[in-house]
Amino acid sequence: MSDRNRQRPAFQASGRSAVAPFLAMDVLSQAAALEAQGRRIIHMEVGQPAAPAPSTALAAARAALDHGRLGYTEAKGRADVRQRLARHYLDAYGVEVHPDRIMLTTGSSAGFNLAFLAAFDPGDRIVLTSPGYPAYRNILKALGLVPVEVDVGEDTRWSLTPDLIAKAQAEGPVKGVLVASPANPTGTMMTPDALADLVRYCEDEGIWFISDEIYHGLVYEGRQETALTTSSQAIIINSFSKYYCMTGWRIGWMVLPEVLVRPVERIAQSLYISPPDVSQIAAAAALDGTAELEKVKAGYAENRRLLLEGLPGLGFDKLLPVDGAFYIYADTSAFDADSLAFTKAMLAEAGVAATPGADFDLTRGASYTRFSFAGSNEDMQQALVQLGDWLKR
Amino acid sequence: MSDRNRQRPAFQASGRSAVAPFLAMDVLSQAAALEAQGRRIIHMEVGQPAAPAPSTALAAARAALDHGRLGYTEAKGRADVRQRLARHYLDAYGVEVHPDRIMLTTGSSAGFNLAFLAAFDPGDRIVLTSPGYPAYRNILKALGLVPVEVDVGEDTRWSLTPDLIAKAQAEGPVKGVLVASPANPTGTMMTPDALADLVRYCEDEGIWFISDEIYHGLVYEGRQETALTTSSQAIIINSFSKYYCMTGWRIGWMVLPEVLVRPVERIAQSLYISPPDVSQIAAAAALDGTAELEKVKAGYAENRRLLLEGLPGLGFDKLLPVDGAFYIYADTSAFDADSLAFTKAMLAEAGVAATPGADFDLTRGASYTRFSFAGSNEDMQQALVQLGDWLKR
Repeated sequence: MSDRNRQRPAFQASGRSAVAPFLAMDVLSQAAALEAQGRRIIHMEVGQPAAPAPSTALAAARAALDHGRLGYTEAKGRADVRQRLARHYLDAYGVEVHPDRIMLTTGSSAGFNLAFLAAFDPGDRIVLTSPGYPAYRNILKALGLVPVEVDVGEDTRWSLTPDLIAKAQAEGPVKGVLVASPANPTGTMMTPDALADLVRYCEDEGIWFISDEIYHGLVYEGRQETALTTSSQAIIINSFSKYYCMTGWRIGWMVLPEVLVRPVERIAQSLYISPPDVSQIAAAAALDGTAELEKVKAGYAENRRLLLEGLPGLGFDKLLPVDGAFYIYADTSAFDADSLAFTKAMLAEAGVAATPGADFDLTRGASYTRFSFAGSNEDMQQALVQLGDWLKR
Repeated sequence: MSDRNRQRPAFQASGRSAVAPFLAMDVLSQAAALEAQGRRIIHMEVGQPAAPAPSTALAAARAALDHGRLGYTEAKGRADVRQRLARHYLDAYGVEVHPDRIMLTTGSSAGFNLAFLAAFDPGDRIVLTSPGYPAYRNILKALGLVPVEVDVGEDTRWSLTPDLIAKAQAEGPVKGVLVASPANPTGTMMTPDALADLVRYCEDEGIWFISDEIYHGLVYEGRQETALTTSSQAIIINSFSKYYCMTGWRIGWMVLPEVLVRPVERIAQSLYISPPDVSQIAAAAALDGTAELEKVKAGYAENRRLLLEGLPGLGFDKLLPVDGAFYIYADTSAFDADSLAFTKAMLAEAGVAATPGADFDLTRGASYTRFSFAGSNEDMQQALVQLGDWLKR
């Protein structure tokens, strides 16, 4: 037994929990503090739709509550919802997918975690773009995996290419490549040909290709394509959070290569049991809510038009291609070399909240700021007025 | 670039995805197949309440749907819900907990994953009981941690003791101890004194104590106590799935030592973003639904009485102490040395589904069968009749 008089060992957190916090969260807290003081803040820092879930989804959720039997489902999710998603692939992309390869997940967050666990072992190197969504890097690190962040720029239209992967391979074996298209924070999309080339290269090299298609449906320029069209070995991650306006429901899905179906299912049984039942039911109904959702999208398209027209005149003239999603990624180094300081001042003085690039790009992030245009048309117009007044001072 | 004519490398799942599937799931599939043939099956294999969430929770969920603004919340969950849980600790245990130390999670599953990631680094050894909940072992392995399963038996009332931990320490450093009380599959509970001794020993040794309190509220013999009463270093995992009848809502909570609050929050931001919003809102209301929930519990108590009266006469006379939860763990080796074969025959011939012990105990599980009594009184009575008829044959 232990000696209660001796010095007690100190309790401390694990090494792998030293994950960088999101700067966006700090912006959110600061904005909330200003609002508590009565200031009106325009929120361009959050990557979430202002619109609620479509009424088809809400009605299905209400019916499920009235029926009253919400319980654990299969770890893969309800069979009828997976069948409905299979039909979605036929309708939206003309691709046949067997429902057995489709798995519902607790948001795309769970999809990434499950894909990483099922495909990779500790020490494996996975290529990501920089700039990119910071949770990729954080989840990989927590799981003992090695994110290899490759700087992308204008020369490759802010995307990975087979050449860039080959360069990463020259430094060590690459086990996975993760691509989002349209991407966060850039809003930029790969052309179908560029995507197919990259997917094919990875398949030839035995590299798992993980395609984050969460911003599909929100495309303003060019044509979206799923990686499934090119390879049945691609791992597809998607979600009802963005186009379907269901962030808070925590529901997404994966399409898996045959060989990963059972491994992912087994891991999910222990790690998640099953996704939220009412969210599964609502999600299936959301797929029939496109009439409403296309109106929401038209609102984003109008926001995009307003900002692309108005921002350059204010001095925001170095914007990445805004093909999809609801983000404008702007080079703001002409205003301030440190976008963290820039966004803080913008929030405090102009009342407009945006996200500093350091969240998305460890090397060049200080030069960039991400603006989300998921809010209302009125908010975007007002943001342009307030930014204009502020920058004139 | 790659040569498309050469042999393509084979894609395969990671080593760590070789997680054992749950036998309980096979039982569930087999039961579903029999039901599809028109057979009536009594379900004693599932650890989930038949009752829906309390009407307070359903009403709150409906109101949230009507209001229509469900979104991401803080990663820790809504502040008002965390405050309500702090009051619950005062009411239920007389313990003061600051709401900042409380974190909502996507079911207890997320609680375990977050606790393991934040407290342990790869290779760390964590002591579990055998028999025990299999997901503990599976999650630990997926995260590169080492489950040290310690056989417990009648001599320690099916619980860990400081002596048993000391023995595990003699074989290598122990970084964590995980205890459920009441436990799954045994339904057995530690006495407050035995729990306090174990928690104190771990605190003295600098060992993280993780207390799975998911079956709190469902206690028929003895007095439940939270590990928080003994140590503010204990990590508490709890959920709305069992007492609160909200399995399908995927909502639970943790109480964390100060030093883990920020690390867990940072990991959760990337790994989960936030728990399902409507489930958070419903969960807070469920805490005010105890009048209904106590009636559900009275139903379990009646089921327990029926089974403890009826099973011994059928030859099930070696049962572990049924203190809490809704499980009876029976030594069924007198019927069949292989409980997997026993439960298969019981399902096919008696129409009663139960779970073989091998899910819970890798060494001695073949001798045991778990019966869940979360169903209706009528089902329990009928199960006794069908089992009696079957065993007479």
